[in-house]
Amino acid sequence: MNKSEQLKSLFVHGIEQGHLLAGDRMPSLRKVCQDHQVSMTTAQRAYGELERLGLIEACPRSGFRVLPQRRNKDPLAQRLNAAERAQGIRIEHLTMALPMPWGSPFVNPALLDPSLMNRALAAILQDYPDRLMDMPVQGLEELRRTLALHYLSQGTLLDGDELLITCGGMEALSLAIRAALRDSGRNNIAAITPAFPAVLDQLGHLDTALHVLPWQHDGERLTAMVEALFANERPAALLLMANYHHPTGRCLDMATKEALVRLAHRYQVALIEDDTYRELYFSNQPPAPLKRFDTEGWVMHCSSFSKSLAPGHRVGWIAGGRFSDTLASLKLCSSLGTPMPSQMALARVLASGRHEEVLASLRIELRARCVAMQERVLECFPEGSRVSEPEGGYFLWVELPDSIDSSALLPAAMQQGIHFAPSRLFHASSPAPANALRLNASFYDRLRHRTGMALLGELLESGLRQGQRFRQRSVLTPGTP
Amino acid sequence: MNKSEQLKSLFVHGIEQGHLLAGDRMPSLRKVCQDHQVSMTTAQRAYGELERLGLIEACPRSGFRVLPQRRNKDPLAQRLNAAERAQGIRIEHLTMALPMPWGSPFVNPALLDPSLMNRALAAILQDYPDRLMDMPVQGLEELRRTLALHYLSQGTLLDGDELLITCGGMEALSLAIRAALRDSGRNNIAAITPAFPAVLDQLGHLDTALHVLPWQHDGERLTAMVEALFANERPAALLLMANYHHPTGRCLDMATKEALVRLAHRYQVALIEDDTYRELYFSNQPPAPLKRFDTEGWVMHCSSFSKSLAPGHRVGWIAGGRFSDTLASLKLCSSLGTPMPSQMALARVLASGRHEEVLASLRIELRARCVAMQERVLECFPEGSRVSEPEGGYFLWVELPDSIDSSALLPAAMQQGIHFAPSRLFHASSPAPANALRLNASFYDRLRHRTGMALLGELLESGLRQGQRFRQRSVLTPGTP
Repeated sequence: MNKSEQLKSLFVHGIEQGHLLAGDRMPSLRKVCQDHQVSMTTAQRAYGELERLGLIEACPRSGFRVLPQRRNKDPLAQRLNAAERAQGIRIEHLTMALPMPWGSPFVNPALLDPSLMNRALAAILQDYPDRLMDMPVQGLEELRRTLALHYLSQGTLLDGDELLITCGGMEALSLAIRAALRDSGRNNIAAITPAFPAVLDQLGHLDTALHVLPWQHDGERLTAMVEALFANERPAALLLMANYHHPTGRCLDMATKEALVRLAHRYQVALIEDDTYRELYFSNQPPAPLKRFDTEGWVMHCSSFSKSLAPGHRVGWIAGGRFSDTLASLKLCSSLGTPMPSQMALARVLASGRHEEVLASLRIELRARCVAMQERVLECFPEGSRVSEPEGGYFLWVELPDSIDSSALLPAAMQQGIHFAPSRLFHASSPAPANALRLNASFYDRLRHRTGMALLGELLESGLRQGQRFRQRSVLTPGTP
Repeated sequence: MNKSEQLKSLFVHGIEQGHLLAGDRMPSLRKVCQDHQVSMTTAQRAYGELERLGLIEACPRSGFRVLPQRRNKDPLAQRLNAAERAQGIRIEHLTMALPMPWGSPFVNPALLDPSLMNRALAAILQDYPDRLMDMPVQGLEELRRTLALHYLSQGTLLDGDELLITCGGMEALSLAIRAALRDSGRNNIAAITPAFPAVLDQLGHLDTALHVLPWQHDGERLTAMVEALFANERPAALLLMANYHHPTGRCLDMATKEALVRLAHRYQVALIEDDTYRELYFSNQPPAPLKRFDTEGWVMHCSSFSKSLAPGHRVGWIAGGRFSDTLASLKLCSSLGTPMPSQMALARVLASGRHEEVLASLRIELRARCVAMQERVLECFPEGSRVSEPEGGYFLWVELPDSIDSSALLPAAMQQGIHFAPSRLFHASSPAPANALRLNASFYDRLRHRTGMALLGELLESGLRQGQRFRQRSVLTPGTP
């Protein structure tokens, strides 16, 4: 290929790959000469070929533009396709496009007010234009201090140096898991299911043994189970949501929290506390984290404001106790630091105290939506369904009659514009319990979605009948698989 | 302890831990009552105790303030102390406080102009206040497209879907390493040393075998070595800097790059291309990345603008070829997404084209500083020292006479206000070559630092004499360790 053919095929592919879209201006001929070190004649010849192929057209006084392509791609179809390809990315993360995206793990962005963070960011650009070049590994000093004060105001005292700022709560958990494995030298982790799907994915990516305990709201039973596990298996860590357990939304009582931390001390097992929803409490006060009882530094407390104040900013943190040094060293190799603009904006918001009002009204709204959706579940879902009574957050966990397989019903629901998160996602075992689902109440609008819930209820009814028929049949023909 | 004693001790510790500093306003009594659910009498009693202890004082009409503490902490001493504690964090990242921080891995922030990114960020806050709530896992669509066009203008065509935005180049490398291990099912990685210290740390944190090849600028010898390694060991991946190899600053020629990619295809080994300094070229054009020759998707190309345009923003990317799906799934569990404000600002800057002028003058400045420092090295350093001739970036790599141990000389240099990165950091083997060091020329000011370089030269001379004496002695007394 000569130079102009090379150039032509570069742009043909650029247009085919969607880097240049219909209506986009092509680089000027002068820029093409400069970028690709070719003569004007070569550049003109390449553009001439692209015109002949119907890919670009010359516009008077504004150079060349990309023409619309014949094959029109449907953006939604494209996204679903991408979802299928990316086996690892569970489909629940890609369904915000449906009218009733009740399977989403995120809080409904319509309920959040970005202006608080935006104003803080704008002010910081004015006041500290040069600070945005810094990049302390452990995070911005002001933010660490403001966060520590925030915890102090909730009655929890953190150690001066132990706070590490992370790229969201997910990085905090990922670092905590690796720190526990590394410092203990052991190669097993324990978790409680049902659990947040991405956390199970994360554990699945590691080359470690996984012990799974079933969630127990009953503190004594949970403590007994954990003690047996620690005594028999001595895992490097136990991942735990003591507040607003995902997906049930329940909190453990104070005595249980204290007992669990004592067990961690006695058996020298790290407790990785995922306290993601801590600001979304429905009562008057935030519940005590496990960290409050941790006199010996065995709790790694992970949280963030991504679910409440600053979703797109990805600012999380970890109070790492005795694991702090290891965490800092892992953070250095994981992402070096956390973006400064977002850290500075969050520190400013927290220092202003203006977040309190915003969070207070968010809590009221989330609680109202949970209650409304709960009521409608009880009205519409098959008899025998049980819905969780969350104490905070925005999820409902619905346990359905045994014979319903929620995963099998998801495609039909999606055709109706409804998405939910089937229970299989929340378990590490296989086969996983299939007769439950998680609903995101932050997306439930009691006026617009009455019919949607009725439709979902009917669908589950039909699944119940199918399941029963299937079960009957399999009872009648023993011996067949 | 009763309620007021609890409250008192919470604040005593908060002040001792530095969450509340001298001059800070204490929370109002009303807020204390609200936060901690105590009566006004209890809150007043607690504050009274704090006053009596000399920790706070009442100010007319503005509540209570924190008083200065008796033990005054020296902030620098505190930082160095923290460095010692955090064994994992190599000290080189904490020496920006010295007047000649030539050991720093970062580009001198004084050479960067934050206004481009700051203006873009301010404009985005105005134009798209709601977009900052989004959080696509693969990264912002506009940024991915703008980056692809940027590569296209440099003659490199990326596949439409393969770009994934990361929290800086470090996360990109971390994801790439894990993706290669996971998809290959193999448990060994190869790297070339000397290498970037944090990358070696990263590899050290993994539970994998590490094959190390010595850097060869000679393309034929490098290719032969790599082929032997691929044939004998078949690692999951080879980490490679084909452009501006760290720390030597050299680029491989086109034929070698093509040959290496062909080897990756033939032996099905992932090439993890660290192209961190690609925008800091001293010639007229950016060099071709390995990715340009990659017809079969075995190259994971990692880069960022953190070294040139937007240090504090931590926006990096990876063009992952056949590993794209695995990378996206690992990214989901690693940090879920990359902060939106920084992504949007970078996309806007790139689309405006204004970065080109800024980068052009940065390149000129870096080149001038490299040349000036190089000259001074040749003037001042012991005879027999050899200094690299970088083709881009901002590092000089100096090989000293054999008997010099650069690590041993670092404390004395730091006492003179000079920091450098000793060669041991850049090697995975033990004992590692000790007779070299890396200098960061972006911090070299030819007018202010002439004497500093002379001092460093003298120090190295003294190290040379000591080393020779030690060597003589050890020759004279054979048999002793």
